[in-house]
Amino acid sequence: MRNLSTDLNHLAINTATIKQWSLEQIVEGCYARGIRAITPWRHDIEKAGLAIARSWFKDAGIAVSGYCRGGFFTTSDEKDPLAINENRRALEEATELGAAGMALVVGGLPNGSKDIEGARAQVVEGIAALLEYAKVLKTPLLIEPLHPVLAADRACVNTLRHALDICDELDPDVSGYLGVAFDVHHLWWDPELQAQTQRAGKGRLMAFHVCDWLVPTKDVLTERGMMGDGVIDIPKLRGWVEAAGFDGLCEVEIFSAKDWWTRDGGEVLDVCIARHRTAV
Amino acid sequence: MRNLSTDLNHLAINTATIKQWSLEQIVEGCYARGIRAITPWRHDIEKAGLAIARSWFKDAGIAVSGYCRGGFFTTSDEKDPLAINENRRALEEATELGAAGMALVVGGLPNGSKDIEGARAQVVEGIAALLEYAKVLKTPLLIEPLHPVLAADRACVNTLRHALDICDELDPDVSGYLGVAFDVHHLWWDPELQAQTQRAGKGRLMAFHVCDWLVPTKDVLTERGMMGDGVIDIPKLRGWVEAAGFDGLCEVEIFSAKDWWTRDGGEVLDVCIARHRTAV
Repeated sequence: MRNLSTDLNHLAINTATIKQWSLEQIVEGCYARGIRAITPWRHDIEKAGLAIARSWFKDAGIAVSGYCRGGFFTTSDEKDPLAINENRRALEEATELGAAGMALVVGGLPNGSKDIEGARAQVVEGIAALLEYAKVLKTPLLIEPLHPVLAADRACVNTLRHALDICDELDPDVSGYLGVAFDVHHLWWDPELQAQTQRAGKGRLMAFHVCDWLVPTKDVLTERGMMGDGVIDIPKLRGWVEAAGFDGLCEVEIFSAKDWWTRDGGEVLDVCIARHRTAV
Repeated sequence: MRNLSTDLNHLAINTATIKQWSLEQIVEGCYARGIRAITPWRHDIEKAGLAIARSWFKDAGIAVSGYCRGGFFTTSDEKDPLAINENRRALEEATELGAAGMALVVGGLPNGSKDIEGARAQVVEGIAALLEYAKVLKTPLLIEPLHPVLAADRACVNTLRHALDICDELDPDVSGYLGVAFDVHHLWWDPELQAQTQRAGKGRLMAFHVCDWLVPTKDVLTERGMMGDGVIDIPKLRGWVEAAGFDGLCEVEIFSAKDWWTRDGGEVLDVCIARHRTAV
């Protein structure tokens, strides 16, 4: 396993972790601390303006490690079936930013529906259509399986096995433009996780997201823990992804309405760095 | 598929559904409505007294469809490793009540532990020990996989596949004393569910629990919905268990702190009956 304690070469910050700061503040805060990769959200970029945001990243020498996010194929309206137009726009933005890839939160059940198989079929159809464009733009798509507790609300792809099945169906040759985002918060409980991680391999493992699972977790959306504060054996999971060939970044993504979002952004970054060294 | 609309022969009530009533009230309320099966909890029986509770069931002609619950193998203390003594007592009570089986909520992570594989190994060890006693008492054990959101807190067995793997390991000959409880709330999201249900077959499918998954679900423990009020396609899942050979009861188990527990118990029972006929 890689040694994370000596430098910050493998650390990335997802901007949702420091919601209390603007994108410009996050770029400055990361730059000042020697962090060299950031994954922004679309609303950050919209607010700053794409060209301006890109110049901030460039001037600071900070890589765009990902882009949040595309997907929601199941909850589109008639004007934009499978949300293809919206997803294409997002992918264009990711490409213009030079992002390493774009995460897909695939969408849950359409309003009023009980047809999860139908929703899953829509997801496959949507990814298939978007993948063609991803190849043109040369910006990879990352299917992010979300925790099963979010199956109805946000994403009906909930296990690494399922995400990989979709990858294998749509991209049997492992083109490099379709893979998965492995988030410890969503996947840690799965008894098949080690085997499926091995199956994923370097060709599909395109992102590794870290935070922690607190006990108790009252709010599954916005009560994530800082690495080391919960029950996930993060070094074990990192060992699995690295054994499977992953050599990318460890991206800190913590939604924390009652704790980390209420603190000073600089303090959050400092703790992220410390825990990256010791608890990831 | 069986037709549930014409009679109540396939309906069972878990006492947790009507927490506002005593066991005696529930027996009376079920008797008056023609419901012929109840699954009580240990605290109900302790409060009433086992012999007295048994006489209530007998006099009302009501079967004890299950017993809640054994398990928690992972959170035992030094005085009772794997909680074996406690589980034996629970199994003796179930047997004295003539219960069709005893559900096992296997336990989550021990306090302070991040070792979910270790917890799972403890669970297998605990079930193996208890299974011997179940065969002596002739009262089956039902592993109940709980939703992955409860992996840390309550049960580290979270998929039907995992529960069946344990059954096959410990009871390869399908003795009839080890099976699973299939609860739609815990399992509905799983893309492997149909295949694993088929795998389970009549020999392992020992209980079918119904309620519904509300959107949004803020509290994963005590915010279950009445059948028909959520996003689970319950008839589809019942079709799967019946196609696999299940011909047992549909047990209503709804934890609902803010809704059904606040209503009159008789009203809850009436709605359970109506929804059993139309939404299960």
